[in-house]
Amino acid sequence: MTVPTTQQDTAPRTLARCRDLVRPALAQAVGRLHPWHAGMAAFSLGWSDVDGSPLPGSQGKGIRQALAVLGAEAAGAPGREAVVGAVAVELIHTFSLLHDDIMDGDETRRQRPTVWKAYGTGPAVLAGDALFALAVQTLADAPGGSGAPAVRRLASALSDLVRGQAEDLLFESRPWTGPGAVRPHEYRSMAEHKTGALLGCAAGLGAVLAGAPADTADALDRAGRHLGVAFQAVDDLLGIWGDPQTTGKPVHSDLRRRKKTYPVLAALAADHPAARRLEVLLHAGGPLDDDAARRAAGLIEEAGGRTATVVEAHEHLAAARESLARVPLAPAAHEEILALLPYLIRRTM
Amino acid sequence: MTVPTTQQDTAPRTLARCRDLVRPALAQAVGRLHPWHAGMAAFSLGWSDVDGSPLPGSQGKGIRQALAVLGAEAAGAPGREAVVGAVAVELIHTFSLLHDDIMDGDETRRQRPTVWKAYGTGPAVLAGDALFALAVQTLADAPGGSGAPAVRRLASALSDLVRGQAEDLLFESRPWTGPGAVRPHEYRSMAEHKTGALLGCAAGLGAVLAGAPADTADALDRAGRHLGVAFQAVDDLLGIWGDPQTTGKPVHSDLRRRKKTYPVLAALAADHPAARRLEVLLHAGGPLDDDAARRAAGLIEEAGGRTATVVEAHEHLAAARESLARVPLAPAAHEEILALLPYLIRRTM
Repeated sequence: MTVPTTQQDTAPRTLARCRDLVRPALAQAVGRLHPWHAGMAAFSLGWSDVDGSPLPGSQGKGIRQALAVLGAEAAGAPGREAVVGAVAVELIHTFSLLHDDIMDGDETRRQRPTVWKAYGTGPAVLAGDALFALAVQTLADAPGGSGAPAVRRLASALSDLVRGQAEDLLFESRPWTGPGAVRPHEYRSMAEHKTGALLGCAAGLGAVLAGAPADTADALDRAGRHLGVAFQAVDDLLGIWGDPQTTGKPVHSDLRRRKKTYPVLAALAADHPAARRLEVLLHAGGPLDDDAARRAAGLIEEAGGRTATVVEAHEHLAAARESLARVPLAPAAHEEILALLPYLIRRTM
Repeated sequence: MTVPTTQQDTAPRTLARCRDLVRPALAQAVGRLHPWHAGMAAFSLGWSDVDGSPLPGSQGKGIRQALAVLGAEAAGAPGREAVVGAVAVELIHTFSLLHDDIMDGDETRRQRPTVWKAYGTGPAVLAGDALFALAVQTLADAPGGSGAPAVRRLASALSDLVRGQAEDLLFESRPWTGPGAVRPHEYRSMAEHKTGALLGCAAGLGAVLAGAPADTADALDRAGRHLGVAFQAVDDLLGIWGDPQTTGKPVHSDLRRRKKTYPVLAALAADHPAARRLEVLLHAGGPLDDDAARRAAGLIEEAGGRTATVVEAHEHLAAARESLARVPLAPAAHEEILALLPYLIRRTM
């Protein structure tokens, strides 16, 4: 995907602007936690090390907080009206990373130990719960009349989030092929729940907190959900063909772990001889070694799984744009969102 | 504590009545979960076995749902107005059992395996998250104008709940004596957060959902918090002197695990020779064997720790009654609450 130079400049500026706007309120919210939990939250947010020493400049992009701020601006309000929602979605994102890393047994994230690895499983479970509670409290305590619909949106996204994680975990025990196999549309639904719901909620929350009509908030929410599906597709491409230096994971890592990701499922669903050879390879059982993983990656590409995943990402970006086009939005914020979409997924494309 | 016969009859009737009122809505809420999570929730609620087969009549007392219903009735409204709040607090209680059992490494609860033991740690973490999300969603979606203050109360109780669990876990690494030792008032604060916040929230939520003024809801909330401290004190007595046949745990179980409970802390804080002998015994390190645990229990009793804990429970029950006396309450519901208080803690006294 070719991204015009102006958009390439716009997106990082937007993200930095939103981070600067939200950071004081986010730090204040984290400061309300029990100090033990605040320490784990600061570690997970990239603000500090295990020993509590500050780590300047290592925080994440802050996609969710940016979508919340832009959601308010797109509805014609100042971004600050969305700050309380931006804080809530960042806290929920952090909660979900803490708990997902436990469930997935992941020991590192962004070249650092995961929270359960650094602090223990029990403390990581509890810190996640504390972040979850704080997110709900932050939004419920929001001044003005928009707290109640905002909490309703967050609660609905939370239900989707845990449902998506369940779907993903249960894919592991399903067969690669045959009647019980995971179909691409089931995978898309999982990605929408697991990744899209919170991105959509972020953008929709911003609009709700700005007092926008429900159809504006819904259009922003749907755009965020499509972005989530596109985001997951890119994650899947990175999990197979990503540069280990960029991803921090070994080459073909998802294949070694026999993860049922979109490229594999799309390849297996294809009517192509390579799909049948891939099937035989995957049915052998056990983790794939270097050679088998490399052969599997080749067969997935040959059967069209890589291309199908790139197409999937593009289609959902297009659907996100279409959703935004259906409602009147403030032009400047609309453009910033449009610049953000390809930036967020161009990591491999 | 001597409980009049009429009260002994009243309390089980009240609990059964409230369970019958709430059960359909609770079952409906659980039915909204992903089937995997619904199965774990039904198992934890005592409704079904690991294989999904029904277990009639094995559910818990349902203290929290009863307090919610009685909170509404005490505010002069029909109990059904509190059902949505009763469902939310039962879901949160179930969530907290699932996650606490992981943190505490407890393998059995009420003579059955805990959820993490039966289904695995990751699934138990996720099912807890799903119950948490469902509780917030249930309350946020409540019809009428009371959803927002109800969610605020629940969110605040949730923050206290996780804070209390953190305080409890951190007590483990504190010394038995000296400047860093856990003081009885710190223990009381932990118990109020960990056990009292949700009981108080239940009663207060009932009043809020019934449209009661804030001071009525606050008085019910405070009463529930005191009940929680009393409840924890009784739990601590059971953890040392409880009958293994009733508790399902070995005799002196909390002492064997070197748990810092109120009787031990009160004994150590006493100016008594037995307190100093207890100190020496505890400082020896490692889990206590049969003989050491029996000697420790004797020394705690000699130093006054057992009596202090009984007094603690009584004082907090009295404080609960006083809190209720400060606001006008519907007499029938008020009496039912008063009958419930001693019933809930008479397990050992």
